[in-house]
Amino acid sequence: MRFLDYFRSKKTSSASVAKERLQIIVAHERGRRDQPDYLPQLQQELLAVIRKYVQISDDMVQVEVDRNDNCSILELNVTLPE
Amino acid sequence: MRFLDYFRSKKTSSASVAKERLQIIVAHERGRRDQPDYLPQLQQELLAVIRKYVQISDDMVQVEVDRNDNCSILELNVTLPE
Repeated sequence: MRFLDYFRSKKTSSASVAKERLQIIVAHERGRRDQPDYLPQLQQELLAVIRKYVQISDDMVQVEVDRNDNCSILELNVTLPE
Repeated sequence: MRFLDYFRSKKTSSASVAKERLQIIVAHERGRRDQPDYLPQLQQELLAVIRKYVQISDDMVQVEVDRNDNCSILELNVTLPE
């Protein structure tokens, strides 16, 4: 699966609420299978960077990880305080 | 425009090359228009974080920014050394 297909397969919710949100998607497409997967560590550092800009607590962050043969996708969804 | 629509509108290229790639998308959906846009600074810090994991030079990074009324999208495409 190419990672752009992943984005396109997402459903939008029907409600359009004016909320403050931040979404970060990191897709790592590996040429070979035996390469290291550094997304879990990267996830922690990305959150640390975001915390410099906005105050977020752990329960405001939804993390999804999707892996297959040659692509790892990390998705961070943050609902920001208004 | 909801930011998931942005992902879905992307075209995939027809060639399927086994390359090592990293794509980072940061979408900031603002509830109000007068809020600060911190994506440019965030971009620099995200690249600094990625450089801890992989050696990348500036010419390996493609940056696209898309803005409209209430949504800013930053897209970083990195082609990694094999």
